[in-house]
Amino acid sequence: MELFTYYRSTSSYRVRIALALKGLDYQALPVNLLKGEQRGADYLALNPQGRVPALRLESGELLVQSPAIIEYLEEAFPETPLLPRAPEARARVRGVAAIIGCDVHPLHNVSVLNQLRQLGHDEAQVNQWIGHWISQGLAAVEQLIGDDGFCFGATPGVADVYLIPQLYAAERFNIDLGGYPRIRRVAALAEQHPAFHQAHPARQPDTPD
Amino acid sequence: MELFTYYRSTSSYRVRIALALKGLDYQALPVNLLKGEQRGADYLALNPQGRVPALRLESGELLVQSPAIIEYLEEAFPETPLLPRAPEARARVRGVAAIIGCDVHPLHNVSVLNQLRQLGHDEAQVNQWIGHWISQGLAAVEQLIGDDGFCFGATPGVADVYLIPQLYAAERFNIDLGGYPRIRRVAALAEQHPAFHQAHPARQPDTPD
Repeated sequence: MELFTYYRSTSSYRVRIALALKGLDYQALPVNLLKGEQRGADYLALNPQGRVPALRLESGELLVQSPAIIEYLEEAFPETPLLPRAPEARARVRGVAAIIGCDVHPLHNVSVLNQLRQLGHDEAQVNQWIGHWISQGLAAVEQLIGDDGFCFGATPGVADVYLIPQLYAAERFNIDLGGYPRIRRVAALAEQHPAFHQAHPARQPDTPD
Repeated sequence: MELFTYYRSTSSYRVRIALALKGLDYQALPVNLLKGEQRGADYLALNPQGRVPALRLESGELLVQSPAIIEYLEEAFPETPLLPRAPEARARVRGVAAIIGCDVHPLHNVSVLNQLRQLGHDEAQVNQWIGHWISQGLAAVEQLIGDDGFCFGATPGVADVYLIPQLYAAERFNIDLGGYPRIRRVAALAEQHPAFHQAHPARQPDTPD
């Protein structure tokens, strides 16, 4: 498999964690978002939305959108499951993933921040916008995840796959995590885990020196 | 089952379509977003994020977030499947759903539009913002869905569950669909389909007269 990825992209980071947790090999094909490579003709011919991540399968088919790719990995490579078995429990995990994937991250995606800048907002206002959405989302996540271990239990799963990249973004944007002790517990566990370590933006082929 | 819903909420509408396609009975529990009922103490005690939809199961458990609820319905009620069987095909469907669920709808959610208004933008600017995201997302969807039938095949599925409510929003915000013939074909088919008819915002218990 080949992953079109950008080291600092939150949603690429999610997919890298899922791949690493499942012990799957892949080749990273970096797409430099700062240079606008995602809008180049070559990349748009592959992925008309012009976003990362995208996963190219051995068959040549390109899968887009991190939620779809993560569910695919779970179905195609069921060893080391990232979701529990009972439908209700799966819904709990996916609920937390969706809060981050739908109600937090899309609002501080680079394309949205650029729109805000085009509307005349300065960096202080942009940062306030980011902080509003991240804090609101993390406050909900804090109430929904469990009291020990990773988000839901002793081993990492889909909720952690979404949460840890979101916390990386929170750190970049100086969000205070003081009010979220459960989230900080999960972050501390992930920091010790080799899959999260391997997937981290600091250790990618396209990470700047 | 009981569905906390608001007639005009895009994501409530999705869940209503999925329930109707599967022929599942439920009681609608309307939450008036205009009156701020989603931020009332009663509702927040149930759903700390204060959003709709939420699905209360017979067990009393409350499921939040439409992507998680729709996957739950698919797993718990597998008759009338809304996803194909092969993992690659499922990923294609979920990719389109995620474009709408992550990259379009969150950007014109009422809470986001209110933030823009608080930042001093007038309705013309707010509408331009909405139009930008909807048009960009629909252009990608147009390229990814099939050449006949619903989004992916002769029967409706998860991609249609996301697309039709998004088109309802597009209509509210006067987005021109002229450039999207495949999407217009799907819309015309859904208009004739009883489940989409039943789930429509015009026919809910909380629809204003």
